[in-house]
Amino acid sequence: MEYIPQALSKVRANRPLVHNITNLVVMNTTANALLAIGASPVMAHAKDELEDMLKIASALVINIGTLDEHWIASMEKAVEIAGKLEKPIVLDPVGAGATRLRTETALNLLDVGAIKVLRGNLSEVAALLGEHGKTRGVDSTAYEKDKAKNLATAAAKEFNTVVAVTGPVDYMSNGKETYAIYNGHELLETVTGTGCMATAIIGAFIAVEEPLKATVSALAIFGIAAEKASEETKYPGSFHIKLYDWLYRIDHNLIKEKAKVERIEP
Amino acid sequence: MEYIPQALSKVRANRPLVHNITNLVVMNTTANALLAIGASPVMAHAKDELEDMLKIASALVINIGTLDEHWIASMEKAVEIAGKLEKPIVLDPVGAGATRLRTETALNLLDVGAIKVLRGNLSEVAALLGEHGKTRGVDSTAYEKDKAKNLATAAAKEFNTVVAVTGPVDYMSNGKETYAIYNGHELLETVTGTGCMATAIIGAFIAVEEPLKATVSALAIFGIAAEKASEETKYPGSFHIKLYDWLYRIDHNLIKEKAKVERIEP
Amino acid sequence: MEYIPQALSKVRANRPLVHNITNLVVMNTTANALLAIGASPVMAHAKDELEDMLKIASALVINIGTLDEHWIASMEKAVEIAGKLEKPIVLDPVGAGATRLRTETALNLLDVGAIKVLRGNLSEVAALLGEHGKTRGVDSTAYEKDKAKNLATAAAKEFNTVVAVTGPVDYMSNGKETYAIYNGHELLETVTGTGCMATAIIGAFIAVEEPLKATVSALAIFGIAAEKASEETKYPGSFHIKLYDWLYRIDHNLIKEKAKVERIEP
Repeated sequence: MEYIPQALSKVRANRPLVHNITNLVVMNTTANALLAIGASPVMAHAKDELEDMLKIASALVINIGTLDEHWIASMEKAVEIAGKLEKPIVLDPVGAGATRLRTETALNLLDVGAIKVLRGNLSEVAALLGEHGKTRGVDSTAYEKDKAKNLATAAAKEFNTVVAVTGPVDYMSNGKETYAIYNGHELLETVTGTGCMATAIIGAFIAVEEPLKATVSALAIFGIAAEKASEETKYPGSFHIKLYDWLYRIDHNLIKEKAKVERIEP
Repeated sequence: MEYIPQALSKVRANRPLVHNITNLVVMNTTANALLAIGASPVMAHAKDELEDMLKIASALVINIGTLDEHWIASMEKAVEIAGKLEKPIVLDPVGAGATRLRTETALNLLDVGAIKVLRGNLSEVAALLGEHGKTRGVDSTAYEKDKAKNLATAAAKEFNTVVAVTGPVDYMSNGKETYAIYNGHELLETVTGTGCMATAIIGAFIAVEEPLKATVSALAIFGIAAEKASEETKYPGSFHIKLYDWLYRIDHNLIKEKAKVERIEP
Repeated sequence: MEYIPQALSKVRANRPLVHNITNLVVMNTTANALLAIGASPVMAHAKDELEDMLKIASALVINIGTLDEHWIASMEKAVEIAGKLEKPIVLDPVGAGATRLRTETALNLLDVGAIKVLRGNLSEVAALLGEHGKTRGVDSTAYEKDKAKNLATAAAKEFNTVVAVTGPVDYMSNGKETYAIYNGHELLETVTGTGCMATAIIGAFIAVEEPLKATVSALAIFGIAAEKASEETKYPGSFHIKLYDWLYRIDHNLIKEKAKVERIEP
């Protein structure tokens, strides 16, 4: 997986401008995660500036965590414009399955056809595949190992995009190749927006690498940063802070030493 | 007060989904406080998803700190739905008294009759009782000991709900019984949203306990966590982080050792 | 520069209520910065409460970082009211030059004539002066030393206000006198909203001091706090937290020892 450290170097060298239309809870969190990894975040949702901003951006992150009718309209317009401008898009369908509005909004955004990566937890991705999984808000549901793996592959085929189903093990697939990543730490579940951070970091990597490699790189690096942070503290407030520190500190050696990426299909 | 550690155990065992419609300043803060104490936060304000979300939620937190006409409409609808679904609600009337809009919005929400707990500082609660106290934004005003105690009792009777008036000493009453809590630390005033965190944590406890005991439990635990955090640092940035750590670390022994709860009426 | 520590003492003695209409990314950040320095922040954007809030506020901070049509209308109304009430205003034109909407919004707000201080980075201020500089979102652009100095002076004359162009060296001018501040640290660029924090702190100081001295004082103090924070950590998450700590800890001795303020014109 030599491309993982190389992708990180490309992010840090290019400092891609990542345009985010994200939820109100994590705006600060994901902006700081993007800065720490070496990208340049901007948040902009006004319909009148979407085109201007997307023209200078290198990727778009859409996160529906605190959607409403105004924000949905912005997201739909942004996905359309980004598609025309051929800017890669990652979608985080926060809470899909918990409410019909979230499920439908995510599906509508996927229908436009320009989403390059979809990242969610098992119940969110399952809901989008019509399994009517009932999520508990933004939390992970009970983890079912094989289901997650199969779900990533099936959803990738269904939506014709890269799909990452994250949890204790992260699975990601483009419908042909499927990978598992065993990095990460359970303290991630004690801090809000860590899934959103992972999605935002995928946004930085799809600006410099093709979608599947970008997703593998982003999630491996994020998981390793979490592991290093957990070596310094066992409590959520401090862990959150150390997570930014380690996104900033992570380097080629650490990736080579710690990455646990497995190609499981084909 | 054997029920305080028991209530904490119930929160951690049940991980109640707490639906928040809260202010833009503290969304991240209160979500992380809820996760740290062991609950599961979700933020959702779109009118089209309120019913779906409240059906799976165990409590509702309403905080008017950055209200506008769109958010007020969501809050009113959410309070109505939660009332019908018999989900307990806690209201934080941030800045009531500072502007007529805030005072009127809080009073309108109280009028619906489904609010189980009202938590504010002295000037906010006093304003709501028609004393026309003038708050300085979201800050505590000068503290008047007896006034706070009497105010909690009077407001509880007036609004037919549990009222907590927080400050150097916290007073809470259901109109019949009144308690004082002497836990907490002055560094809480140096971090934005600590009052909102207290309110959100009450939201977690009313999901598992009756309103007065839930409020006593939440505020005692929050105050003890602040005391422990203050033992590790004297500065606001670090204190903020340690506060999350101690909400996560607090346990039965610490509660028994540190809780300073007094029944003052009857 | 004896007035710098004196201005800090005035902020801490008066605890001015600073009314912010700011962006969704940094609301928490700037509120905590204002509390740490000793001011009292409030965020309020509902058109129906702007007048009530501004009447009790001592200064207004406008930051266009996540503008849309609703927020623009609030900003315009707030600037008008604050002008009539003679409350000092500081404007942060985040991303001016990146999109026409941002450039035009900032220029419209400046046209009202009540802005006392404009703080931006080189590309933002340059864009507002019609140089069509193209910013990369909210990031600093390449730094050109003489350009920044001249830009501050020229923009101050053009807009008839104090202008601060911040970067590795901060320049600020009222069109007659121009100062340079050499405090600060490069870690500031690794945390989102540090420019917005600087603007908010200017908001606290214009509540107690005339605009140019207020701007010099705020930026020197902010820069020194950053230097002290950087002595404790080299990583962005921890630096962010230590920055609040040092805004709270900074005192007269530290200012006298560390301030690097130079009068460069006339």
